[in-house]
Amino acid sequence: MSELKSYLTRQAKRVDQALRGALPRSNVRPATLHKAMRYSIFAGGKRLRPILTLAACEACGGDPEEALPLACAVECLHTYSLIHDDLPSMDDDDLRRGNPTLHKVYGEAVAVLAGDALQALSFELIGRAKPTPRYSTAALLGELAVTAGSQALIAGQVMDMEGEGKKLTKGQIVSIHERKTAALLTTSLRFGAMSANASESKLAAITRFGFALGLAFQVIDDILDVTQSSEKLGKSAGKDEAVDKSTFPALIGLERSRKEAAKLTRQAQLALHEMRLGRSRLAEIADYMLKRDY
Amino acid sequence: MSELKSYLTRQAKRVDQALRGALPRSNVRPATLHKAMRYSIFAGGKRLRPILTLAACEACGGDPEEALPLACAVECLHTYSLIHDDLPSMDDDDLRRGNPTLHKVYGEAVAVLAGDALQALSFELIGRAKPTPRYSTAALLGELAVTAGSQALIAGQVMDMEGEGKKLTKGQIVSIHERKTAALLTTSLRFGAMSANASESKLAAITRFGFALGLAFQVIDDILDVTQSSEKLGKSAGKDEAVDKSTFPALIGLERSRKEAAKLTRQAQLALHEMRLGRSRLAEIADYMLKRDY
Repeated sequence: MSELKSYLTRQAKRVDQALRGALPRSNVRPATLHKAMRYSIFAGGKRLRPILTLAACEACGGDPEEALPLACAVECLHTYSLIHDDLPSMDDDDLRRGNPTLHKVYGEAVAVLAGDALQALSFELIGRAKPTPRYSTAALLGELAVTAGSQALIAGQVMDMEGEGKKLTKGQIVSIHERKTAALLTTSLRFGAMSANASESKLAAITRFGFALGLAFQVIDDILDVTQSSEKLGKSAGKDEAVDKSTFPALIGLERSRKEAAKLTRQAQLALHEMRLGRSRLAEIADYMLKRDY
Repeated sequence: MSELKSYLTRQAKRVDQALRGALPRSNVRPATLHKAMRYSIFAGGKRLRPILTLAACEACGGDPEEALPLACAVECLHTYSLIHDDLPSMDDDDLRRGNPTLHKVYGEAVAVLAGDALQALSFELIGRAKPTPRYSTAALLGELAVTAGSQALIAGQVMDMEGEGKKLTKGQIVSIHERKTAALLTTSLRFGAMSANASESKLAAITRFGFALGLAFQVIDDILDVTQSSEKLGKSAGKDEAVDKSTFPALIGLERSRKEAAKLTRQAQLALHEMRLGRSRLAEIADYMLKRDY
């Protein structure tokens, strides 16, 4: 485990360095905007998604250096979506990654615009990634655009908000999790595989792995929202219950939610085994993500 | 002029039809989000930017059919930027294109998210455009991403807000106009030229034309904000003065602003003459845009 920890730290640093180069410096006009973008990007995120990109690239025999622009693109997209989800008109959150949310520090207008700019930057980074024989720039662009779009990431946020105060079915909750969490986690992994020019069948297996991992990850997130403190999570805990959100713990209780997460975890592991990656770094990271308590 | 009017109507219809196909239908889940996106896109905009794309393509000898995805992309990007600029935390506008603004009808959260989704869609459309020998998908993507990004479109909005209540110099106002208006107008034209595989020198002349046209267009917009009614403009008039915004009319008065617009218009025409497009459709559209009174 300590070997994995050092791998995660090393890769996170690599992503951080690439992000420092990808974002305009704080003194570039308009300075407020660029400071705000950097505030959220360098707020101490765990960099799980970009690390998945790099690890999937390695697992498919690619050079992770080539995957860095794509890794940065998913992190920018993820950060933008957190900034907008935290806005007063949406989840109205004060705390993120252990720090005050962006709108608390820079005001709402700058938070909206910094999020907008990070979405634009994530697409700009796609243009800087090297296409491979199997995966053109148009394919990489289409992948991110669909995941970022009105039927995936944004659909998830809308459905999540619309579900507040309502009793959703298990199927409806899964459908939100797929869009809100699993889609971008899967794209993170697929980007790694694509930058390694992985075969179609490998990409399909990575996709199955990503979806199971993403769903498990979200169920665990909802469990932690109930069981952990804000201090430990670095974001407001107990939020789901406060706004009467339909989650697995609310619907089927903690114990059965844990079983559900374990089932999804096994599905993820199975997908890796099919690719003979059952003992890979990717498997270790999945294990780490699903055993976390923060 | 009536021949031009019929051209504009025809091209606007063509853009509308392409947009109807590009946006998810209103019954696609989440229906609220897709209805909101359609509400703003089909709110009766004049489609000036996408028409410039089609006309620039024709002027450079290309088939405008090939330029349609790019034309739709600039319209989606433009509409998203209007939705976010109108938000209560920003310009707090109630009226746009003669209708209530999106957040007035669907609420602030959906307005933020519909804007986000339109930005993602504009990039998705870039991936659907056919690259040409001189201009790859990566080049088209880079063009839109930079224009949409933190040093152009979004920089313009931030600088515009930061300038409220301050006395800006003429240079500072021009610098805002370049980012807020001229950048996307220029990209609209460049996209047309690029989809026609225009030479570098032609693209450079189109770019000079676009910047002059964009700056003239914004000066005229600021003049109209002073001289016209909300009813005529389809958006709140007198807004600039109300928030003490630094504009050309405020800084140098109406008469000198009109002269400034005329000077910029001549610069735009000069750029067209250099390309032997002085009597082209593009020249007629420029003339129409700069003589408008709404």
